Amino acid sequence: MFFSKSFIPILKNNPTEAKIKSHQLMLRTGMIKQSSAGIYSWLPLGFRVMKKIEQIVREEQNKVGVQEILMPTIQSSEIWKESGRYDDYGEEMLRIKDRQNREMLYGPTNEELITEIFRSSVKSYKSLPQLLYHIQWKFRDELRPRFGIMRCREFYMKDAYSFDISDDEALFSYNKFFLAYLNTFKRLDLSAIPMAADTGPIGGNLSHEFIILADTGESRIYTDKRIFDVDSSRTTIDKDSLTHLRNNFEKFYSVTDEKFNKDKFEKNVPEEHRLNTKGIEVGHIFYFGDKYSKPMKASVDFNGKKEFVKMGSYGIGVSRLVGAIIEAKYDNKNEIMKWPISVSPYDCSILPITNKNDNSSLEKALNIYKTLKKNNLDILIDDTEENLSSKMKKFNLLGIPYQIIIGNNFNENKIEFKEINNDTKYISLNEIIKIIKNKKVH
Amino acid sequence: MFFSKSFIPILKNNPTEAKIKSHQLMLRTGMIKQSSAGIYSWLPLGFRVMKKIEQIVREEQNKVGVQEILMPTIQSSEIWKESGRYDDYGEEMLRIKDRQNREMLYGPTNEELITEIFRSSVKSYKSLPQLLYHIQWKFRDELRPRFGIMRCREFYMKDAYSFDISDDEALFSYNKFFLAYLNTFKRLDLSAIPMAADTGPIGGNLSHEFIILADTGESRIYTDKRIFDVDSSRTTIDKDSLTHLRNNFEKFYSVTDEKFNKDKFEKNVPEEHRLNTKGIEVGHIFYFGDKYSKPMKASVDFNGKKEFVKMGSYGIGVSRLVGAIIEAKYDNKNEIMKWPISVSPYDCSILPITNKNDNSSLEKALNIYKTLKKNNLDILIDDTEENLSSKMKKFNLLGIPYQIIIGNNFNENKIEFKEINNDTKYISLNEIIKIIKNKKVH
Repeated sequence: MFFSKSFIPILKNNPTEAKIKSHQLMLRTGMIKQSSAGIYSWLPLGFRVMKKIEQIVREEQNKVGVQEILMPTIQSSEIWKESGRYDDYGEEMLRIKDRQNREMLYGPTNEELITEIFRSSVKSYKSLPQLLYHIQWKFRDELRPRFGIMRCREFYMKDAYSFDISDDEALFSYNKFFLAYLNTFKRLDLSAIPMAADTGPIGGNLSHEFIILADTGESRIYTDKRIFDVDSSRTTIDKDSLTHLRNNFEKFYSVTDEKFNKDKFEKNVPEEHRLNTKGIEVGHIFYFGDKYSKPMKASVDFNGKKEFVKMGSYGIGVSRLVGAIIEAKYDNKNEIMKWPISVSPYDCSILPITNKNDNSSLEKALNIYKTLKKNNLDILIDDTEENLSSKMKKFNLLGIPYQIIIGNNFNENKIEFKEINNDTKYISLNEIIKIIKNKKVH
Repeated sequence: MFFSKSFIPILKNNPTEAKIKSHQLMLRTGMIKQSSAGIYSWLPLGFRVMKKIEQIVREEQNKVGVQEILMPTIQSSEIWKESGRYDDYGEEMLRIKDRQNREMLYGPTNEELITEIFRSSVKSYKSLPQLLYHIQWKFRDELRPRFGIMRCREFYMKDAYSFDISDDEALFSYNKFFLAYLNTFKRLDLSAIPMAADTGPIGGNLSHEFIILADTGESRIYTDKRIFDVDSSRTTIDKDSLTHLRNNFEKFYSVTDEKFNKDKFEKNVPEEHRLNTKGIEVGHIFYFGDKYSKPMKASVDFNGKKEFVKMGSYGIGVSRLVGAIIEAKYDNKNEIMKWPISVSPYDCSILPITNKNDNSSLEKALNIYKTLKKNNLDILIDDTEENLSSKMKKFNLLGIPYQIIIGNNFNENKIEFKEINNDTKYISLNEIIKIIKNKKVH
């Protein structure tokens, strides 16, 4: 992509309305644009990042055997009355009347609708477990939307649901998601810790939040630092291996403030391992048994009688993760962002010196651009007439992790190549390609 | 995927509420499930088809240089008041009040919002043309939703918008989409004809509908049969080539009933080439100049003065296409569906005889399944205990174009292989793989 043709409306300065760094950077680099309070459009740069996150989330769901579906955004109030949540949910639910005066709503979550789908489709325990997910827009009518897409009203979320015959089987499903979440955040280059959490309006008695550390986080967390060293890389999708993994995490005290108990924290965590900081919730999983299946009569035949299925639900905020990654990776003091290559809007940028009377750097840049494209790398080339130092400033904000700089002393065996936050190297194009490709597969 | 583990809730009989064959087949094969009037959930089988269509639509937009963004579903009423359409749009617009009593709406289309994004981001004609698209859910509160996802309320649509400095440049943009649409429908194995059309509530004076022939279509069409032979395969993305393509189509009389003129039809089309039939609209493109840019003041600097940009908009019904393909491809008399391989939910099915006391066919099937998976083919294997003839009936409805049948006389050099609507062959697995892969790339 040529910068001059792209739709990346960069702002010269930090927007004053933005209070946290992800909101600032996203507005400044034209990733998003507010359309009304708490509602945003995703422009090409932001869209590309979000789509890549979505795809990683999808692949990790598929890997543990969850099937993708897609439920609508607009739901009927009837199923919410069945579950008993229609009145409970309060003003955060966007309630709508259609032209026939039917009570509808914009789904804030989908426990009711998935239970309705399940109960009308599955009759026998032999079809269990069923693990289903969708990635769809949700709406929560926040009283005070803020922090850009971190606490907005219309947001993009992966929510999954599990249906099992017994508590034991349901925990197996729960643990599959536990692993899928760890793997997802790892691919996003985030250190996310699972923490025992309250279940809130979803209900149930087992729940984990996945939290990444960030000063701007809204959750206060208390954790044993050794939890960062728990290794999930050898866990396989069988009951023992997954239980073992859960146990390895749960050995370490790690909770959000809702569950915090000072005595327990100090008793269980040696002082040198204590960490009391803030974090951002990026995922939340729940086990709630028959909380929805019972009032909504979602049962299967099991040995001659009807059993209510045991359910869990599992959320990841896909749009929120874009902001969370910025909160974790953006050095706003030096105005340097670096996207993990797995979700970067482009793999590499090319920054040529451009002079009105001399096309030679731009032409060299174009040749390199073509070679990189042939190697299936996604490139943003800055063909504008800005001077090189302002290009470099701009691209430090854009956060594409690799930069090729083409100045007046270009030498094709020693191309100026920089990984953001690292020293400049002078290497051949083949070596550059090798470095980027190698990083992409890991 | 194993059929026994899949979430494909098949109905034994045609649902009586469905009046057209796409609606019947989609409910019967568990592709969709209605959640309320005109609102559907997409279950795994339907979801897979829709996603593949979406990806083809996306790739063809990208190929002609359109950039992808994503606008929200919920819009503010303010921009619709600016354009003057808020009152005009009538009851089909789903109007919403949020908790602060602000007037919002669920976007039925996005001319206003994209114009707002454009005017706040682009200042100079040098940044033109800008071609932007998104693929997002829309809502139109139909009085009588019917025909399943063909005329529903919440639907998935690709809508694109072009911004240019002059009529001439704008027509160039229009023609790029014209070509992209032809290529899109070709990849979906649909014969779609572009037809001069009325512009309706979108406005403007140039518009084409892309129509596929189908008895159940809601549009009556009058066309010269020779239009099916117009070749677009050598058209390139430059002004002359695209103009030439448009001219080649427009040589032939081809209109929907709104524009029909009997005298013209009979004068311009020799009797043997006349075709008067019904069709389904699958795409619609519009050029409307400054209809939105003027009231909404979307202008750019051009030679020292402000010029209102010239706009067009370009829609494809992504969810509707799922139904349209079924209308075109489903032989409901014999209950045989055949998906084009480009959008088929799976590439091939494997149907083993399964006996309670004899696993041997299933084991052979599993070996074949593994080999096909290794070759990156997507396979649905029927491991249920149904008898072979009911499996075959079921899979004729599912429409996966290739079937491998494993009966009692299995011979690995002469595997029973069937392409739906073709004769059975007895060939090796390698030959089977070659046939499917070869079809997938074309």
